[in-house]
Amino acid sequence: MAEQAVPGHNRWHPDIPPVVAIDPGGSYRIECKEWTDEQITNSDSADDITSVNLDKCHMLSGPFAVNGAQPGDILVVDILDMGPFPEHEWGYTGIFAKDNGGGFLCDHFPDSAKAVWDLEGIYCTSRHLPGVRFAGLSHPGLLGCAPSHDLLAEWNRRETALVEANPDRITGDPASVSQDPPLALLPLEKDALLGTLPPDHHARVAGEAARTVPPRDHGGNVDIKNLSKGTRIYFPVYVEDALFSIGDLHFSQGDGEITFCGAIEMPGYIDLGFDLIKGGVAKYGLDAANPHGNPVFVPGPVEPRYNRYLMFEGICVEDGRNYYMDATVAYRRACLNAIEYLKCALGYTGEQAYLLLGAAPIEGRIGGIVDIPNCAVTVGIPLEILDRDILPG
Amino acid sequence: MAEQAVPGHNRWHPDIPPVVAIDPGGSYRIECKEWTDEQITNSDSADDITSVNLDKCHMLSGPFAVNGAQPGDILVVDILDMGPFPEHEWGYTGIFAKDNGGGFLCDHFPDSAKAVWDLEGIYCTSRHLPGVRFAGLSHPGLLGCAPSHDLLAEWNRRETALVEANPDRITGDPASVSQDPPLALLPLEKDALLGTLPPDHHARVAGEAARTVPPRDHGGNVDIKNLSKGTRIYFPVYVEDALFSIGDLHFSQGDGEITFCGAIEMPGYIDLGFDLIKGGVAKYGLDAANPHGNPVFVPGPVEPRYNRYLMFEGICVEDGRNYYMDATVAYRRACLNAIEYLKCALGYTGEQAYLLLGAAPIEGRIGGIVDIPNCAVTVGIPLEILDRDILPG
Amino acid sequence: MAEQAVPGHNRWHPDIPPVVAIDPGGSYRIECKEWTDEQITNSDSADDITSVNLDKCHMLSGPFAVNGAQPGDILVVDILDMGPFPEHEWGYTGIFAKDNGGGFLCDHFPDSAKAVWDLEGIYCTSRHLPGVRFAGLSHPGLLGCAPSHDLLAEWNRRETALVEANPDRITGDPASVSQDPPLALLPLEKDALLGTLPPDHHARVAGEAARTVPPRDHGGNVDIKNLSKGTRIYFPVYVEDALFSIGDLHFSQGDGEITFCGAIEMPGYIDLGFDLIKGGVAKYGLDAANPHGNPVFVPGPVEPRYNRYLMFEGICVEDGRNYYMDATVAYRRACLNAIEYLKCALGYTGEQAYLLLGAAPIEGRIGGIVDIPNCAVTVGIPLEILDRDILPG
Amino acid sequence: MAEQAVPGHNRWHPDIPPVVAIDPGGSYRIECKEWTDEQITNSDSADDITSVNLDKCHMLSGPFAVNGAQPGDILVVDILDMGPFPEHEWGYTGIFAKDNGGGFLCDHFPDSAKAVWDLEGIYCTSRHLPGVRFAGLSHPGLLGCAPSHDLLAEWNRRETALVEANPDRITGDPASVSQDPPLALLPLEKDALLGTLPPDHHARVAGEAARTVPPRDHGGNVDIKNLSKGTRIYFPVYVEDALFSIGDLHFSQGDGEITFCGAIEMPGYIDLGFDLIKGGVAKYGLDAANPHGNPVFVPGPVEPRYNRYLMFEGICVEDGRNYYMDATVAYRRACLNAIEYLKCALGYTGEQAYLLLGAAPIEGRIGGIVDIPNCAVTVGIPLEILDRDILPG
Repeated sequence: MAEQAVPGHNRWHPDIPPVVAIDPGGSYRIECKEWTDEQITNSDSADDITSVNLDKCHMLSGPFAVNGAQPGDILVVDILDMGPFPEHEWGYTGIFAKDNGGGFLCDHFPDSAKAVWDLEGIYCTSRHLPGVRFAGLSHPGLLGCAPSHDLLAEWNRRETALVEANPDRITGDPASVSQDPPLALLPLEKDALLGTLPPDHHARVAGEAARTVPPRDHGGNVDIKNLSKGTRIYFPVYVEDALFSIGDLHFSQGDGEITFCGAIEMPGYIDLGFDLIKGGVAKYGLDAANPHGNPVFVPGPVEPRYNRYLMFEGICVEDGRNYYMDATVAYRRACLNAIEYLKCALGYTGEQAYLLLGAAPIEGRIGGIVDIPNCAVTVGIPLEILDRDILPG
Repeated sequence: MAEQAVPGHNRWHPDIPPVVAIDPGGSYRIECKEWTDEQITNSDSADDITSVNLDKCHMLSGPFAVNGAQPGDILVVDILDMGPFPEHEWGYTGIFAKDNGGGFLCDHFPDSAKAVWDLEGIYCTSRHLPGVRFAGLSHPGLLGCAPSHDLLAEWNRRETALVEANPDRITGDPASVSQDPPLALLPLEKDALLGTLPPDHHARVAGEAARTVPPRDHGGNVDIKNLSKGTRIYFPVYVEDALFSIGDLHFSQGDGEITFCGAIEMPGYIDLGFDLIKGGVAKYGLDAANPHGNPVFVPGPVEPRYNRYLMFEGICVEDGRNYYMDATVAYRRACLNAIEYLKCALGYTGEQAYLLLGAAPIEGRIGGIVDIPNCAVTVGIPLEILDRDILPG
Repeated sequence: MAEQAVPGHNRWHPDIPPVVAIDPGGSYRIECKEWTDEQITNSDSADDITSVNLDKCHMLSGPFAVNGAQPGDILVVDILDMGPFPEHEWGYTGIFAKDNGGGFLCDHFPDSAKAVWDLEGIYCTSRHLPGVRFAGLSHPGLLGCAPSHDLLAEWNRRETALVEANPDRITGDPASVSQDPPLALLPLEKDALLGTLPPDHHARVAGEAARTVPPRDHGGNVDIKNLSKGTRIYFPVYVEDALFSIGDLHFSQGDGEITFCGAIEMPGYIDLGFDLIKGGVAKYGLDAANPHGNPVFVPGPVEPRYNRYLMFEGICVEDGRNYYMDATVAYRRACLNAIEYLKCALGYTGEQAYLLLGAAPIEGRIGGIVDIPNCAVTVGIPLEILDRDILPG
Repeated sequence: MAEQAVPGHNRWHPDIPPVVAIDPGGSYRIECKEWTDEQITNSDSADDITSVNLDKCHMLSGPFAVNGAQPGDILVVDILDMGPFPEHEWGYTGIFAKDNGGGFLCDHFPDSAKAVWDLEGIYCTSRHLPGVRFAGLSHPGLLGCAPSHDLLAEWNRRETALVEANPDRITGDPASVSQDPPLALLPLEKDALLGTLPPDHHARVAGEAARTVPPRDHGGNVDIKNLSKGTRIYFPVYVEDALFSIGDLHFSQGDGEITFCGAIEMPGYIDLGFDLIKGGVAKYGLDAANPHGNPVFVPGPVEPRYNRYLMFEGICVEDGRNYYMDATVAYRRACLNAIEYLKCALGYTGEQAYLLLGAAPIEGRIGGIVDIPNCAVTVGIPLEILDRDILPG
């Protein structure tokens, strides 16, 4: 990406120049690099995951300047279609090592692992996960408009505050959440790619620019599997011309993207339509609960639908400790319950089961979240993706 | 309930005698009281919510002894059908006051409120929420097998430890989560109803018996909306004869049951089928991630399905503070975003919007939960339940 | 039915007096007899099918007078809920003998047969069809408003003309369609039940009244499986007060109801809501293609949905003869293809396979109907209703 | 197509040489011409429809020789993906004139008309049909294996017999079905394209080869909209190497493809996987009801699904005449009812409504087909494809 005449970017900053200006009302095909800029290969070894350089992530296409967009407008983005490049019909799911990326269950699975998927039209299979075939619920993992300088400053303020706080105080238990992965990723000049920004601005902008890892007010790396083909998204605009960017295409992903790189990652194309609703943020109250606004969206009509799910419950009790209404712990327990079941039912290793939950269209749902002190969260596996019956009895 | 010849119960304890013994393989119609034992009336005032006696909750039917069930077996329960009594075709959704029950958004909505729903066959409408009509996704909120003495002791141990801990340490921020509602509800002799337990055992058992409020390892008050008609549930058995109980029927509920009594609460009947899988808990690994096991289930095939959802994103940032991977905070933000939007789009008060999210079949899903420091959680409102188009533009 | 104080009826005629008058806007529970008035028993013999008295069919509840309804109005009927009586949780599917009722495949299956179904909440199973369990897509088979005298005269005129025509001329081939069943059932005084009509009018009205067997302009015996719970139907009104009647409840049915009594027939209750759209027939063009109008409807939201169907194609070629664009022949061929497959895959007899197609929620769809000289019609079996995998390979 | 080095074909004959040999187990991308070989333009005039040369249709890609395939095998074909060419993102729906092609309602709409559709990713819109936008249910209209010489002879025998019969005898009514379109299209040497067949065989083969218009035992021009992305089809093999051909890609189509060229016709690509089940035709009884066998299929999992349909009923009564169990007449009546409604509700002309029913994913279903003398057939329009509410009231 860095060697392109007009490169993309891997940080969020309003000063990154647009790659092109477009008019609202049109539709465009955009090509995206795989999020690591293709550091990962179609192989049976996870060494590339172990040593991946995450400072270069995520490789985004853009920014696209939308003519006429102004702060307070809603940028309407239609995901018209997407897919892998015909010459690159594979993707991968990675468990990232605890000391380089981590993941939702990194205390249980501290070592890296990888599953490579063959993409055949709408379907995928993996030589590393036998007995599974499903239709991709394809979506972009990361998309949104550039923050204003003020919003960027706010992000940096609050994330710095988090890092500076005592993590024990935050998580409540040093033993339950690994301290190894950092609490947040602050601006980093190393490997910052800032499009066509003139070199003399590079150090300043890279020192301020937000990392692309977390989802934030503008959307960003939301990793929501239901941003599927046909989805319409309403984004708050923070700067002149909106400066919209996109990347991190997923052939499929389970709710939570729990292995960190839990989706089936791929380079590919995405067709987008753009439109504007002038003054829409205030008009529709998108800024009423959050002054910066938040995107809203309507998922597309062609998501693969399943008839039967095996659902696992999790509550916020872990290692004998009762957490208070902690949906994160509850989801972790539900996922671990599912993994143990799949080991038993499919003869998988734990890593295989974990990789499957990261990549397949599993449903992670909030159950009861008011019944003190425990919340219940469920994770559901669509039974139709398996080649055998795994129900008890 | 207390005045019945064979009353039910409102605490969990293995010594509560069964009301009847049944054989696996059969199906049975069970009648259930509304969870407060009908303290709430079909009226336009929320005074009954304000002053409700929660010590009497939840009123459960059972325990049912399943002949031949032993610890380590799986009790298979089929929810064959359920519904309101023909002479009681209404239900209610309540916002519980912060000082008597509370709820997910009690810092934002500290006062009680109520919506009464008219049930007309599969549909419901509320005079308190104009413009809404939907088909009920009916389910029982609370069900499971009695804990063993050991499991009960474990529940009491860990919940006592939670209460005794400094809540500040647990939630990380005294300002963000109200300290008013207790952290957990410990055993309480007052208003304990223990079925046909002989009076001389009452004090001992009530002093040990678990409150029915939270979901726990056995299931219990999971408030999972997808335990719908036609669902098959696999429960771990902890004691001889299983001692299964059920109650808290909901005509409908949104994911999270966020107003605390967020479902449409009703008394009614439920038809259940029972079966046993001998030794199933170990055989299917239900105890591999949790030595006490956890229920798993397959939702039924007649859930109302919707084509279009308006989805709201939430991240774990609240009042300028960045939480670390906190799905509870993220879901709260998504719900608040939805409430503000509905106020704008439907002309509702905040309380009306909150009541709607509690009762309607909203979907609360885990988005990305690995992208430090923020997780993204979504809440989706099915657009077909509204009588007008609320999309922007 | 005939012995009730206020009996229903089994013929269509505007002079049959209403059983009760109702106001639009309300909802009502109506109880219905099984269509033969319970001539069929829960047994393993089909002798009752062989000798059934079809002159008594169908037993309808009503007519219900809707206050204020006038010709040209639309009567809006909501099917709010329905189900079997708790004390009668079984139903049956019958193959009617070629010489007493017949059916879609009566040349292939000339003898009577029967399957009895046990109804367990939303599900049904049959001891006569092992390996099958599904959720009922319950609906009324027969419903509509009374015809005006003019419309009734038109029905009698055209059906008499059909009977008087040379059937060879109509079907084109004496060999392909059995001549044994009559071409139409004309008015018949024997066994006519006409509600509370005074005896001195009985002979006249019975001599004019239309039999209930066919669907007609007003709806009637449409046997459309998607008139499911939650459906809203818009009926043309032909006479003062509408005079709406209903009956022939089905727990489930496949498209076509191909065994004649192909549904799972049961007595039961149905909850209906009524409303009026004054002058709606002309306003919405319901009478533009047919001066008598035709009902339109919106199916309900809780139909069981399936993920995978095995679909069979049929074209209008039979016994070496090429018919011209005949969707009836094509559907017959698709059904026969399905039956042969099920015999092979499930080890069923032809009668068992035929009974299954009649009762299960099979989908019969028009494929291409313009590609001269053949049309293609498909029938699809939802694979989830079977306890084994029947796909090839 | 005819000018390609290796052209395709527009007739069915086992002597047409394969274009390439492939191995079972692989997957392949095939490019297809639009069915008329692109005689129709992206314009606002239907003159091209009026004068289209149908003798050149349908332009098929193939035959593909499948190594190892033998008569009696099942050829398993997976439709992995399909779509328009990126440089050709439009398609059209045509009403063919009664004297050149005709259509299902050619007596009502005898003149040609055309709607051009813009394809934007998964969606389409038409400047000729305002207010409509939907996701394509894309599928190939025409596919199957070459007939054996015996099967081809049988086709010719029975279609010749149909043409030679008195059409009055067949249709029963000269007035109800236009006599203008031929009853069948017999072999025609003019414009026959036979791939790479040596010239000295051309006259013989063209004189025997079947036209591609109708669906037949092998599948062929079935125009089944549910042969969608992800579908698996099981085809009987009649000749050595199977000789599979495909074409007539549709971006979308309603059940029946009622305007004759009712689909949204387009050139494009289709990705197919191939496999063999040796001896599968007899093993799975595909030849039990038809000695030549018939394809069976399992539709794909990503069809657009809709929540609400407005459904119209039709019965087999037309122009005052009562037909006997004629599903073709009943479907025509249902379609005409729908057209009149859409004229009223959308302000469309009849031609516009007819074009919409041809192209949109309407559902044509067999209702009751045993209730003499009338069958009921329904056609359903998904309400979500329209930009306004068209329900009565």
